[in-house]
Amino acid sequence: MNTVRDTISAPGRVKEIASLANRQIKDIRALFQKKQRDRQSVFLAEGQKLLIDALDQGWSIRTLVHAKSAAQSAAKIAARTVAAGGDVLIVPEKVLGAITRRDNPQMVVGVLEQRFSPLDAISPGTGDTWVALDRVRDPGNLGTIVRTADAVGAAGIILVGDCVDPFSPETVRATMGSVFSIPIARSNRNAFIEWSKMQNAMFVGTHLSGSVDYRAVDYTKQPVVLLMGNEQQGLDDELTGICDPLVRIPQAGKADSLNLAVSTGVMLYEIRREVLTLPDKEQS
Amino acid sequence: MNTVRDTISAPGRVKEIASLANRQIKDIRALFQKKQRDRQSVFLAEGQKLLIDALDQGWSIRTLVHAKSAAQSAAKIAARTVAAGGDVLIVPEKVLGAITRRDNPQMVVGVLEQRFSPLDAISPGTGDTWVALDRVRDPGNLGTIVRTADAVGAAGIILVGDCVDPFSPETVRATMGSVFSIPIARSNRNAFIEWSKMQNAMFVGTHLSGSVDYRAVDYTKQPVVLLMGNEQQGLDDELTGICDPLVRIPQAGKADSLNLAVSTGVMLYEIRREVLTLPDKEQS
Repeated sequence: MNTVRDTISAPGRVKEIASLANRQIKDIRALFQKKQRDRQSVFLAEGQKLLIDALDQGWSIRTLVHAKSAAQSAAKIAARTVAAGGDVLIVPEKVLGAITRRDNPQMVVGVLEQRFSPLDAISPGTGDTWVALDRVRDPGNLGTIVRTADAVGAAGIILVGDCVDPFSPETVRATMGSVFSIPIARSNRNAFIEWSKMQNAMFVGTHLSGSVDYRAVDYTKQPVVLLMGNEQQGLDDELTGICDPLVRIPQAGKADSLNLAVSTGVMLYEIRREVLTLPDKEQS
Repeated sequence: MNTVRDTISAPGRVKEIASLANRQIKDIRALFQKKQRDRQSVFLAEGQKLLIDALDQGWSIRTLVHAKSAAQSAAKIAARTVAAGGDVLIVPEKVLGAITRRDNPQMVVGVLEQRFSPLDAISPGTGDTWVALDRVRDPGNLGTIVRTADAVGAAGIILVGDCVDPFSPETVRATMGSVFSIPIARSNRNAFIEWSKMQNAMFVGTHLSGSVDYRAVDYTKQPVVLLMGNEQQGLDDELTGICDPLVRIPQAGKADSLNLAVSTGVMLYEIRREVLTLPDKEQS
């Protein structure tokens, strides 16, 4: 998938690098900044489990970095990386600490190309549930929502307006690998509203002023696009305007509101209530 | 409530402190370490909103620290602190940055006494839902669960075994003030199991090997204690043993499991399904 690189059909290279001053290491360390991730259109995924998830989901690793001490456990991932034209960098553990900015870094880290699904290509079909997030700000929330979307079998995520980067290290970690299986699209608000008009789907918004109990809606008749608002401000007025129904999750107690990832989880389990069953149950 | 302090009935003092080397400031900065929080049996709460929540819920502020620039907005909290015998420290903004370890610190920070409910005093009654967490490790998860427990009107949280500190700054932040309204108890595993035998309550555990759909249980007949397991390992075997039923939340997709705070939220909304209604609905 490295279509823009000249290494495309040739196997990648394996190199030992000891210095933080190395150019390639510098470029990888810079990926902690969104600006640099955007410029290179890549991101970091940390740990063997995550990278195996990525490969199994058809992603390719552009550059694999692993500690010398992890050579044996990383051998398979390294082989697949090289076969697909990616580079493998073998480094001291301190370099991995510098790349991941963690005290106890993973011994294997990969650089992968970002993927965004074009909104125009999305057309929710029967049984589909999409999640549209309006200006989500917290990386952990976004990652957890991607993970939950995967767990409930949702079709994908649409990021509307100025959202946190789905490819930040913190978000990628919080997805626990689901970033590789859940399509992510992004859109500005107006384009999303235009897109919504062309869909034969139910646009369900949650709002503290919603008058409909979230459990009183039949979510099975149409594809569903669930709209969830910004952590502080909730759903934007214009986006609220395209929602029918506008629902509310009842709350007791003194909390102002639920955490965004929790309320999205509660909504998704309600929307997918008829679809989600235990495997044992299906057999009986 | 400052029963252990000699300032109990006398009003507190207001002081200006400029230096990070000041003894009182040093003690407060040390509260980032669990050891120091435990030794002093206090914790930090950041921001006016949180501190007003605390005061409104009957907690008292032992020491209030605010920036000189925030004198006006903090005036009421300061007055209530002094009236209850607490100290008010007026400091440069850089001191608040050093206390909270944040680039954009809150301008008002309070030191409050920790409160734990004794497990022996807890006896779940009709309509009560308690959440027992087995070795929860992530401060954000714990804070979010406390917040969700508040939102659904749960009776409280029981921390079982080696859990993350509910009074760490990150947990307190994630509770969004619910730490002041939700009772928290803690227990080792054996004491919890002994306690469970004396309760007339349904102990519901979630487990990937659970054979009962979480929606197939009638949660209305008895008080409910919901047991949720550690993020990596799930529920401990001995705790699984006291659960009847052991339920499972169905999952599609490739995610190994749900985030703990999300699965707890989904469970709590199911357990409290009959109890939670929209206010409008109740009137009609």
